[in-house]
Amino acid sequence: MVSPTTLATSERESFLAVFDTISTDLVAELKNYSLPQDGVEHVKKMLAYNVPGGKLNRGLTVPSALQSLLKRSLTKDELLKSQILGWCIELLQAFFLISDDIMDGSITRRGQPCWYKQPTIGMIAINDAFICEGAIYRLLKQHFRGTPYYADLLELFHEVTYQTEVGQMMDLITAPEDSVDLNKFSIEKHAYIVEYKTAYYSFYLPIALAMRMAGIQDEVAYQQAKAVLLPLGEYFQVQDDYLDCYGSPEVIGKIGTDIEDNKCGWLIVQALERASAAQRKVLDENYGQKSPENVKAVKKVYEELRIADVYHAYEEASYARISKLIEAIDESLIPREMFVVFMNRIYKRKV
Amino acid sequence: MVSPTTLATSERESFLAVFDTISTDLVAELKNYSLPQDGVEHVKKMLAYNVPGGKLNRGLTVPSALQSLLKRSLTKDELLKSQILGWCIELLQAFFLISDDIMDGSITRRGQPCWYKQPTIGMIAINDAFICEGAIYRLLKQHFRGTPYYADLLELFHEVTYQTEVGQMMDLITAPEDSVDLNKFSIEKHAYIVEYKTAYYSFYLPIALAMRMAGIQDEVAYQQAKAVLLPLGEYFQVQDDYLDCYGSPEVIGKIGTDIEDNKCGWLIVQALERASAAQRKVLDENYGQKSPENVKAVKKVYEELRIADVYHAYEEASYARISKLIEAIDESLIPREMFVVFMNRIYKRKV
Repeated sequence: MVSPTTLATSERESFLAVFDTISTDLVAELKNYSLPQDGVEHVKKMLAYNVPGGKLNRGLTVPSALQSLLKRSLTKDELLKSQILGWCIELLQAFFLISDDIMDGSITRRGQPCWYKQPTIGMIAINDAFICEGAIYRLLKQHFRGTPYYADLLELFHEVTYQTEVGQMMDLITAPEDSVDLNKFSIEKHAYIVEYKTAYYSFYLPIALAMRMAGIQDEVAYQQAKAVLLPLGEYFQVQDDYLDCYGSPEVIGKIGTDIEDNKCGWLIVQALERASAAQRKVLDENYGQKSPENVKAVKKVYEELRIADVYHAYEEASYARISKLIEAIDESLIPREMFVVFMNRIYKRKV
Repeated sequence: MVSPTTLATSERESFLAVFDTISTDLVAELKNYSLPQDGVEHVKKMLAYNVPGGKLNRGLTVPSALQSLLKRSLTKDELLKSQILGWCIELLQAFFLISDDIMDGSITRRGQPCWYKQPTIGMIAINDAFICEGAIYRLLKQHFRGTPYYADLLELFHEVTYQTEVGQMMDLITAPEDSVDLNKFSIEKHAYIVEYKTAYYSFYLPIALAMRMAGIQDEVAYQQAKAVLLPLGEYFQVQDDYLDCYGSPEVIGKIGTDIEDNKCGWLIVQALERASAAQRKVLDENYGQKSPENVKAVKKVYEELRIADVYHAYEEASYARISKLIEAIDESLIPREMFVVFMNRIYKRKV
């Protein structure tokens, strides 16, 4: 048994140690497929470069949520299994990020060049992204085949992957980088994109995986979890949009470029909702343009419309709304505490 | 009941009619997800452009193999279900082709511009490829959840998808377009790439899906099918490599460019095996170069080495070898006739 304190202090190291196990497992299977040695080396390098370098919040949530659900320390086997599910989310994330970077023409990711920007990689990165996704199902088969919830795990990953892809599609067709048309933006579309592109896989998926492992089968429990986690995910993404414009670059570790990149973000859709005809003209002429003057003009309209105040009001209202949603959870199905911890970790974050 | 003759004559029309059904099903589900109208239109257009335009051989094989296995006409429900599995293979194919075209920088596919070359598409095509793959699992869930072989179908698609991706990876790292190094080529690597990149999803998958539908559970039956279908797939791909160089463009409908594109094809690996030091020098200096003089120099070495004769000998030997493999099949598990039909359709094809 692993005690809760041990889990808390060494949570991250223990999780990272499991990455070596899964990387070894995946490579061993490829050797079974008699993959030539240069292929083996490529997969090892690709996984090490793309999978473990992030904040790992999504992956780490699975073991910690499982502990909340079971209301006790995890056995060695439960800990390992929940960590493997956590790595499956991180593999899904790698699949999305490698390909998003190509689609967005990004240069850096997590403080290093994007994978497709590496000298010998280029467009091979698309296929590498596929391999990250495929690896999820290899791991699920290796470690969960025979468990009563195996089919549920497969369906959960399929569904959430598809939802994220559909969200990404809406994002891409709503805000193509080369043709700015603010008529395509709306509060509803923004909410759709955020829910599908981010909230399902980042917020609902880790908790739902832990719930499956905990043996929860009542669909009502999943509906209740979703009812809290999707709004929580929206709130998180709106914060992200706000910090992109108003966060200090030293704290958030990057300089926001949502305005330049024609992103259908929360600030612009709120501004469009409130803009006068003259302000709308300024936004039309300056949004999605690369020069600092254009960005300045957009930010001036945000200021006139007091969008930062609108955000702070949204933040308070969200906190109240999500708290109510948590209170509505039936404790005989899932513990409210799991969600409270999650929300408080996010509320009023600066980074 | 559908009679065998009706099935044979209207096979293709009946199969194509089912595409409308699945496209409608997929879109209906997206409307359930409250996807905005422009998203719905994008998915419809993308599926219609990329999924049904090919020869459909893989997809059509599922209902015809199921009929061989059951040794009787199919019921309406069996026909529809086997056709849906056929469309799942065509969706998998669309997923691979959309992304392969981007990775290879191709211009046209099936007589029209590649999807990513369409004016408003570009790199969105990567995500569209993902949606084709995701659609497979939506259809399997809609139509097969609750069947005793549902989990087998999921695992089969996962495994074959991963095998194809690993094959594509080996192809890409063995023969990058911008750096020619014939030392990376070998008969073994060629065989690996062909088996993984093509044979599993094009030859084994359609038959294995029909076998699952027919209720076959004995793993030995799948091993025996694989033992025939993977060599058959290799033989098919070697033909393809041969026709790329020696087929008449009017018949095969394209001008081969394997030499220019630095492809690790069957002809070059055979030539490397047989080349003198002087011939090897010619190959090193001319393979993977774009100009007609380079291509001519390579073809001259092929002629000196009588590679076309080597091919014809391979063709005869393959036919004999595969016939023996078919004879080794245990008829109490699967009918040999299913494989004989398949092989005779391919043997000595000109297109």
